[in-house]
Amino acid sequence: MAHCLAILAHMASPPTLVPGSVGSVETRYLDLPAPIRLDCGRELHPVRVAYETYGELSPERDNVILVCHALSGDAHAAGHSAEPPAESTRDGFGAERRDGAAGKGLGWWDGMIGPGKAFDTDRFFVISTNLLGGCRGTTGPSSIDPATGQPYGSDFPVVTVSDMVRTQRAFLDVLGIDRLAAVAGGSLGGMQALEWAVLFPDLVDAVVVIASTHALHTQGVAWNAIARNAIMGDPAWQNGHYYGTGRTPDAGMGVARMVGHVTYLSAPALTERFGRRLQFADDIRYTLREPEFEIESYLRHQAGSFVKRFDANTYLYTSRALTYFDLARQHGDGSLARALEGVSARTLLIAFSSDWLYPPSASEQIEQALRALGKPVEFEVIDAPYGHDCFLLEEAQQIPIIRRFLGDGETNPHSREERSS
Amino acid sequence: MAHCLAILAHMASPPTLVPGSVGSVETRYLDLPAPIRLDCGRELHPVRVAYETYGELSPERDNVILVCHALSGDAHAAGHSAEPPAESTRDGFGAERRDGAAGKGLGWWDGMIGPGKAFDTDRFFVISTNLLGGCRGTTGPSSIDPATGQPYGSDFPVVTVSDMVRTQRAFLDVLGIDRLAAVAGGSLGGMQALEWAVLFPDLVDAVVVIASTHALHTQGVAWNAIARNAIMGDPAWQNGHYYGTGRTPDAGMGVARMVGHVTYLSAPALTERFGRRLQFADDIRYTLREPEFEIESYLRHQAGSFVKRFDANTYLYTSRALTYFDLARQHGDGSLARALEGVSARTLLIAFSSDWLYPPSASEQIEQALRALGKPVEFEVIDAPYGHDCFLLEEAQQIPIIRRFLGDGETNPHSREERSS
Repeated sequence: MAHCLAILAHMASPPTLVPGSVGSVETRYLDLPAPIRLDCGRELHPVRVAYETYGELSPERDNVILVCHALSGDAHAAGHSAEPPAESTRDGFGAERRDGAAGKGLGWWDGMIGPGKAFDTDRFFVISTNLLGGCRGTTGPSSIDPATGQPYGSDFPVVTVSDMVRTQRAFLDVLGIDRLAAVAGGSLGGMQALEWAVLFPDLVDAVVVIASTHALHTQGVAWNAIARNAIMGDPAWQNGHYYGTGRTPDAGMGVARMVGHVTYLSAPALTERFGRRLQFADDIRYTLREPEFEIESYLRHQAGSFVKRFDANTYLYTSRALTYFDLARQHGDGSLARALEGVSARTLLIAFSSDWLYPPSASEQIEQALRALGKPVEFEVIDAPYGHDCFLLEEAQQIPIIRRFLGDGETNPHSREERSS
Repeated sequence: MAHCLAILAHMASPPTLVPGSVGSVETRYLDLPAPIRLDCGRELHPVRVAYETYGELSPERDNVILVCHALSGDAHAAGHSAEPPAESTRDGFGAERRDGAAGKGLGWWDGMIGPGKAFDTDRFFVISTNLLGGCRGTTGPSSIDPATGQPYGSDFPVVTVSDMVRTQRAFLDVLGIDRLAAVAGGSLGGMQALEWAVLFPDLVDAVVVIASTHALHTQGVAWNAIARNAIMGDPAWQNGHYYGTGRTPDAGMGVARMVGHVTYLSAPALTERFGRRLQFADDIRYTLREPEFEIESYLRHQAGSFVKRFDANTYLYTSRALTYFDLARQHGDGSLARALEGVSARTLLIAFSSDWLYPPSASEQIEQALRALGKPVEFEVIDAPYGHDCFLLEEAQQIPIIRRFLGDGETNPHSREERSS
């Protein structure tokens, strides 16, 4: 409890604010007191969780929003990181922003978290953690395995979205937070939000599930399998034990990231931005090795910048977890309705018209199942051209929807949530 | 000319017929008498062309249809190869058939070429060649570079679709064939057919362009770049000089093939066939390395079978050629209409509703440009679920369209084509 109070005291220290921003922030770390029991049957210990917080915890501790990140994210969701920029990037698509976030020190969802934003730090205490299996401070395959004194590598246990959520719960327990006003996330982050609603219905008042699904479709499973095959097929992967060898599977990771990029964007968005423009004016150079089209150069640049900041094994484990995620299989004996029966949180689903990786149809299935069960649910399809990356880009359209759903600040969020649950 | 007559005499030998089939066939080889001058400025010599023929050449030599293959095809388009099967495969999607064709000895377009089929060997003399840069008999990167006595590897010149077509023209010259009743192909094969119509308008009476485009869209360029990056990023590629080293870039090629497979199929077709079914009943094994879902196992199987039969460098060169292909840029100063101005062939365009790699919109642009120029053109969109692979699968729907376009055998094809040109 002393530990808990010290943490909360630390949280209360006011950040350096810039207009509309949560200001300068720092990632902190917390070691869980007990092992995490995993779906695969193994136990994981010790487990450290990297996290950031924005806003102030109310005396009643009833204004907490947990924000969950996607495949390549981290705990640094908002504000400016105190760490110096590690790389320069170009502005543009969400994937670039995602890659650039660490470098620029700007959180990956900075447009959504802050004073007056979707997750309004004037009202809410927003917590963001790096997920289990991560490579940005939370225990993952690059952490030291206490049994060997060496990094786990591919001996790290296969983790699931449920495991990630149970880890977040254990983390919040240490902080003395036993109730969430909301859990929110996009993509894999949305899966975590859904899992929270199913796994701990009594602890969650609302979930905001953006560009996500209750179970990735076959093509999405295929893209993820290709990405993992690219990494594991790289000899530098060394069967998962590349730490300390001076070699990392950058070539495979680069290909994985390229596949990711193309699936995160819509075909029309790619056409609009790059068309068939050549790298060097209108001159074809007849080269096999070098990029000839701008899109080729863009993909290489994105791959190159990603491998510098992200661990390949974390990519593998996280990709695996998001393909396993399947509410109906895990919690409903194959029935999505049965899986959602116990949900008590209000649910907001947001999808994007051009997202073909997490298409609106998946969110619609969740909406229909919840509605049939008489659960409070809202579903908004935002008409936007950028594909899956919209969840990182289309802040202007998301913010009013989320603010309204969370009570807009005009009513006390706690009482509002009690009314509807 | 003696050489030419000997070839034609060989052609006239009747094959062993099975019902509806062109029977047992054999790939033959022809060395071109002169160098091929390439778009990149280099000259290639010697050039050998692998080819097969089906049906009989008319005395007037006016019933020739040239069939052009796609990225991973070869000269063996129809009938049963005399060569023994090299591998066993499963039936199913077109991509599997494509992979399986060589193994089973069945041509990759056997459903379309033969007595009474789309390209009716009772009327037409069908010629199929392996394209320039190929790995199945025609000169390509695995051929011996006369300058070094070693395989070219990545010293092979970058070739274009125009280069492929000029090679086919030089090949037909040797055979004494100076006019084509039709050029036909799907995907990259359709690009070759279009290039024939533009490059040699006086020599082509009709073109059949299936599931193809005048210029691959940005996302397609991206997929191809990813595939090539996967191959070139494999250390076993050895900068393109892997022949004779005992190592081939199988891991990279496997990933390239997986990307290809997913883009050749539609998302709904994948869902329908594989869903989220697990490999082992409903038991999740929590494995990082092994396939867990059926779709994962399928992709690995396809990758494994492809690397056994196809040369990685040929994949690179062919993929590069099809991304370069751009009628407007090459022949119209950026204008598709200007590029098509000189076309005199009748054009049949076929596209498939679910093909997102070569979407119907691309064929529609060609149709509109030709129509605006007053050229004879037909455009059919076939409603079929399998994506790009439909061009190898949807024979039942394609055959009547193509037969009607080619005159259905009721009129003499030569006079019909004269009438419309």
